[in-house]
Amino acid sequence: MCQLMGMSCNKLAATTFSFTGFSARGGLTSDHVDGWGIAFYDGKGCRVFQDDQAASHSPLAEYVRQHPIKSKVVVAHVRKATQGDVQSANCHPFQREWLGRTWVFAHNGDLRDFEAPKSCQDMPVGGTDSERAFCALMSHLRSHFKDRVQPPEWSELAPVLARIAAELAGHGNFNMLLSDGQALYAHCSTNLHLLTRRHPFPHARLVDRDMSLDLGPLNAEGDVMSLLATEPLTLDEPWKALRTGEFVVLVGGQLVWQEIHPGTRAFPVVSPITATRAPSHA
Amino acid sequence: MCQLMGMSCNKLAATTFSFTGFSARGGLTSDHVDGWGIAFYDGKGCRVFQDDQAASHSPLAEYVRQHPIKSKVVVAHVRKATQGDVQSANCHPFQREWLGRTWVFAHNGDLRDFEAPKSCQDMPVGGTDSERAFCALMSHLRSHFKDRVQPPEWSELAPVLARIAAELAGHGNFNMLLSDGQALYAHCSTNLHLLTRRHPFPHARLVDRDMSLDLGPLNAEGDVMSLLATEPLTLDEPWKALRTGEFVVLVGGQLVWQEIHPGTRAFPVVSPITATRAPSHA
Repeated sequence: MCQLMGMSCNKLAATTFSFTGFSARGGLTSDHVDGWGIAFYDGKGCRVFQDDQAASHSPLAEYVRQHPIKSKVVVAHVRKATQGDVQSANCHPFQREWLGRTWVFAHNGDLRDFEAPKSCQDMPVGGTDSERAFCALMSHLRSHFKDRVQPPEWSELAPVLARIAAELAGHGNFNMLLSDGQALYAHCSTNLHLLTRRHPFPHARLVDRDMSLDLGPLNAEGDVMSLLATEPLTLDEPWKALRTGEFVVLVGGQLVWQEIHPGTRAFPVVSPITATRAPSHA
Repeated sequence: MCQLMGMSCNKLAATTFSFTGFSARGGLTSDHVDGWGIAFYDGKGCRVFQDDQAASHSPLAEYVRQHPIKSKVVVAHVRKATQGDVQSANCHPFQREWLGRTWVFAHNGDLRDFEAPKSCQDMPVGGTDSERAFCALMSHLRSHFKDRVQPPEWSELAPVLARIAAELAGHGNFNMLLSDGQALYAHCSTNLHLLTRRHPFPHARLVDRDMSLDLGPLNAEGDVMSLLATEPLTLDEPWKALRTGEFVVLVGGQLVWQEIHPGTRAFPVVSPITATRAPSHA
């Protein structure tokens, strides 16, 4: 299994504090040591940092912890391999371009025996069930909106994505984060928590590190930020567990759409593989 | 205009020394200050680092200079904006997935009034002529090889890519680097230099920094590495200027294919715009 972190905000914000706690789960407070990645949307651009080393010890993760990168949408992942060996091709978030936007995707769960349809235009680069699911999802979008030359609005995408997510969740646990830089979409099969902060932001204490921060002075009137994480990142804040089958959409830091698919079930959690590192990368 | 750097090697190799010289052109020895990027292939994966700051001063570029990342294929770019404002969506190399491989592309030149055909499946995220050309190129490949489920070999791709490059070079200067991690493809309109090093590698001295390095001890019998760069990166090595219309393919550090398109001409160099930074990235 893996862990997910996402952020949506109505102003540019750094996630250094949250990522410091989250990345500790990649080897320090938890054993998600098989790689990590984080995508920061920057206007229309999207910068993805990833590494197949443990996030707690990776020098690049340390760079990200030390250099605040301001963004309105962030998607991050620490990996515990269940399918696909340890190599950067298998690090989330994955990315594809569709209709002039970069889409990123990160997944926690295990889709047993899931294969993307042969007709998929998107094909996986690595060997994970997660990337196969992402390819199926993007190809589904391309085909559903095939005559468009502009990307649809989130309000049009949400019900389509919720249906695709429910279908994928029939193959195994499908906790996921997806974004095009405008909206942050999330689906919960088993484990995903949501927190919304409004000005004034509180004094927050990390679950995974002995570290606290008064977020108040960093924010201004009208600021709204939502965080999504597999497990709550901070103590003493009202994180809310999403329900099995719940699909949510966050725009500008706010929950704007949600739907619960009643047929979705939680699968028993699969034991991680004893991950093998890619032979030589050679 | 911009500057390009590419590397192909038959063994995993770090390009820290070359990048140290190359990135000095992003603000120190040259005024290519409008962003930079570098792609390292890592097995099937591809890690892209980019930033809209000047490479000579960017903390992320400093990270790349300080942390050797071993790879067999590298594509790098420092940007002097001619079209598209200064933002990360406009930083090269651009990337797209095709048939399960990540393709990256970097361009130096100026394609006046070039628009990708409306039928293109790939669409630009940013506002540069370069990304439009890349989208046209990838869409051309998708359509030329449309029934494939496996990526064609370089030997099959080379003549098709050479033809596409010659066509794009009819719109303006098209010095470019392109790779799928297997082969490094390059086209020269005006300015691109090639150097091949064979074991034992020499003692090399950078053009752009007062720095030299004895590369010999870092290499072993049988090692071959080729570098491509807009301007030679080192003194006292036999860099060879490619000719206008020349298309080359490097695999495992060696030149394996070349063709000169006689109809290609060099266009007068366009003055860079006074680059504007994206209003707020907000």
